[in-house]
Amino acid sequence: MDKERIRLARLHDKVVSADEAAALIRDGMTVGMSGFTRAGDCKEVPFALARRAATEPLRITLMTGASLGNDIDRVLAEADVIARRLPFQSDATLRRKINAGEVMFIDQHLSETVEQLRSGQLAPVDVAVVEAVAITEQGGIIPSTSVGNSASFAMLARKVIVEINLNMPLELEGLHDIYFPVQRPYRQPIPLIAPAQRIGLPYIPIDPEKIAAIVFTAKDDSPSNALPPDAETSQIAGHLNDFLLREVRAGRLSPSLQPLQAGIGTIANAVLHGMVESPFRELQMYSEVLQDSTIELLDAGRLAFASASSVTLTRAVYQRFLSNLDRYRSRLLLRPQEISNHPEILRRLGLITINTALECDIYGNVNSTHVGGTHMMNGIGGSGDFARNAHLSVFVTKSVAKGGDISSIVPMVAHVDHTEHDVDIIVTEHGLADLRGLAPRERARTVIANCADPQYRELLGDYFRRACAHGGQTPHLVEEALSWHADFRDRGTMQPARPAPALAA
Amino acid sequence: MDKERIRLARLHDKVVSADEAAALIRDGMTVGMSGFTRAGDCKEVPFALARRAATEPLRITLMTGASLGNDIDRVLAEADVIARRLPFQSDATLRRKINAGEVMFIDQHLSETVEQLRSGQLAPVDVAVVEAVAITEQGGIIPSTSVGNSASFAMLARKVIVEINLNMPLELEGLHDIYFPVQRPYRQPIPLIAPAQRIGLPYIPIDPEKIAAIVFTAKDDSPSNALPPDAETSQIAGHLNDFLLREVRAGRLSPSLQPLQAGIGTIANAVLHGMVESPFRELQMYSEVLQDSTIELLDAGRLAFASASSVTLTRAVYQRFLSNLDRYRSRLLLRPQEISNHPEILRRLGLITINTALECDIYGNVNSTHVGGTHMMNGIGGSGDFARNAHLSVFVTKSVAKGGDISSIVPMVAHVDHTEHDVDIIVTEHGLADLRGLAPRERARTVIANCADPQYRELLGDYFRRACAHGGQTPHLVEEALSWHADFRDRGTMQPARPAPALAA
Repeated sequence: MDKERIRLARLHDKVVSADEAAALIRDGMTVGMSGFTRAGDCKEVPFALARRAATEPLRITLMTGASLGNDIDRVLAEADVIARRLPFQSDATLRRKINAGEVMFIDQHLSETVEQLRSGQLAPVDVAVVEAVAITEQGGIIPSTSVGNSASFAMLARKVIVEINLNMPLELEGLHDIYFPVQRPYRQPIPLIAPAQRIGLPYIPIDPEKIAAIVFTAKDDSPSNALPPDAETSQIAGHLNDFLLREVRAGRLSPSLQPLQAGIGTIANAVLHGMVESPFRELQMYSEVLQDSTIELLDAGRLAFASASSVTLTRAVYQRFLSNLDRYRSRLLLRPQEISNHPEILRRLGLITINTALECDIYGNVNSTHVGGTHMMNGIGGSGDFARNAHLSVFVTKSVAKGGDISSIVPMVAHVDHTEHDVDIIVTEHGLADLRGLAPRERARTVIANCADPQYRELLGDYFRRACAHGGQTPHLVEEALSWHADFRDRGTMQPARPAPALAA
Repeated sequence: MDKERIRLARLHDKVVSADEAAALIRDGMTVGMSGFTRAGDCKEVPFALARRAATEPLRITLMTGASLGNDIDRVLAEADVIARRLPFQSDATLRRKINAGEVMFIDQHLSETVEQLRSGQLAPVDVAVVEAVAITEQGGIIPSTSVGNSASFAMLARKVIVEINLNMPLELEGLHDIYFPVQRPYRQPIPLIAPAQRIGLPYIPIDPEKIAAIVFTAKDDSPSNALPPDAETSQIAGHLNDFLLREVRAGRLSPSLQPLQAGIGTIANAVLHGMVESPFRELQMYSEVLQDSTIELLDAGRLAFASASSVTLTRAVYQRFLSNLDRYRSRLLLRPQEISNHPEILRRLGLITINTALECDIYGNVNSTHVGGTHMMNGIGGSGDFARNAHLSVFVTKSVAKGGDISSIVPMVAHVDHTEHDVDIIVTEHGLADLRGLAPRERARTVIANCADPQYRELLGDYFRRACAHGGQTPHLVEEALSWHADFRDRGTMQPARPAPALAA
């Protein structure tokens, strides 16, 4: 086993227990761990850290690619190991501590963390912990189901712990393309001009002397928690497909569209799922995460190639994927998130990006992160990288939440992640608002008419008319703009209080 | 004269009056005019249009590079010629019409207009009107003091009107570098890897058959309206210089820093002016507009090279510049704004960007555009292009406006142009807040302590503490968050109403 998985013989004596490896991590350190959208996270060292924290002070800055699976963020948060966390998370317990101000969470564009690390603008990584399929003859690390920031963490860290996961088939080798931009001021153009293009190595090239410990594990990634498509997400998919078809007919898009990106989660997954039945052909993806819908599109022959930074699948599809890697390997590539999300590449390729909004306002500003304007949900993730540089930036959301007590279309979003400049299209189950080339007042009319739920449409129209009476490029009544959020907080609904029924005479 | 200025002989008979040229522009058309930050705008055809509008219906969509000088936007707005305007403006009369909802203004990232035009996502340009120094033997157009979107307008328009401005010296030839990205899906990396590098042609290469009219003009650009440095802008410059010096000492920046960008206007100009006395050497600029401070830095030997899309100078410096072009030409280049502001280039070069905020909130979100959250000032311009992709994104503002009645640091900005993710440093005359690697609650403490005016500091601290009591990653009291703006609107000040003095006993 060691020979196949650790091909550089002199590293064989680096194999230790998770507890021994975790001992390399000391109180106050900055630790970079693999893992992106629950895929390819390290499976044992985090738990060894949590165990140690029961008996000694152990607080670290934890950087990852994006969210972790296997309850790692929960266990580490409960053990009070995480003092500082970046750039993304999606765990309920950690989220609670973040919102209580007990964990300092730095919410970042996913393409940027590594730039800041490299230029010394973030604290240097003391130890990297990276899940791998194997270590090559030269000591290169072959990642598993995600690349995320693992390659950069391993390159930049003083010491590297490799977790070799025996549940990850060796056939994953060759799925990765590891490229680092040249250092400034000598940086050259990144040579990538098509999603399927290889520009790097199939492993992370590090000095094997830095590999301080190797731990064997045998545990699956946590499955995706995206829900299956439902009536409303199917309607959203339908509206978007209809729109894209009109763009093809108008000659503004080819029948293979532009490379697609879809954010993590139920709605974006459902929208891509909806393309299985679409007339579009020879599609390509240049995304950060591949979900079930990607595999469906590949199986249906709709998708020619998919590039991303991770693969996050539901249990059944995950097994099918890992058992049939030979079938998928020539049509998939996993890249560092710096490259999957890089503004240079995104602007060059010209993507159609599909990301989920928590709420949108009538002018097309989007809140992706802060419930009620204050409480962090997960983080901005890659949505800003993609929306800003898109050929066509689409945001999707159901028009209401909490059984109708929350309208996802509001007068003013209580937190802005994406400004109106970066939002071309908004889709809800009711319809699609095409905001391209429109001024804010025009945007408001189309968002209200096409996207708002009927029960909120007249209220939004009334707000907009009264705001317009006060003038402005973006009319608002500042004293009322966030009152819908206050109403929900105080009364549990954004619906207006009904006048008390008149007493019978 | 014609021979020097119109070197392609068969174009000599295209010379007409401004009125005759303007007749090519019809009611309902989309017109692309040269002009970027008051530089290189066309000087006669717009006025001919305004005259015609007095006698016949004439409403157009007007696209430019950025703002125009010579009162063009005022005159066209007064004549009611502008139905739709993009992507930037800075005229008081037009602004009034925009805020009244009478002109539809599409406020765009300056790098993006051309992408949208090229992909058919904006209405096509019917007529381009471009100021030039001369037309080459092949019919190429040599721009004057700005490139802006002129090259793309001329390439994409059906017809082109060239205004040859005899006040622009022929020595401007050679100052421009015109490059267009290859069309998607065949787009290649843009080969630019250093501010001084030439990648294109010194003229706009168009089919001379498209040149439908040539008008001779002889008028200067409007001078810059930036004010000279004052005590507060000098303090801002001082804080930033001190900070940059600390970064150099810490080894995070070299003594030549990174290429600099500075937004248009008084404060950014003053900050660069402050570098004349700094210890930084061999500086480079990769900006969208060069102001007086650039010429000062060149003259002082501080600046090795400056790349931009326009040159906007005060009267005295303008004359000095145009009379000494031989001295400056080897150290300046003007590029299309798509290239000066291109995310690919900006991220590659890693700029220090310095842009002006209208207001910042305690968490580091920035409003660059909307007074009171509703009324457009000028537009986002290139600030988003630069801030998002910066190595170090700096925003500068005086801590108060209107004699202290407005605090530029507020609990929540009433309009967001730049989210906290894109803001590294905030500087006011009181100090500098370094927000890198900080979570929102940490950002709030440093912004309040370092940037707020003392008279608002305790009020902001009080808001923040009360908001924290309600929890959240970004604590806010939604019912109170915008009350400072409502107070200013209703009472003329953000200062709290003082309790009435107690009656004497």
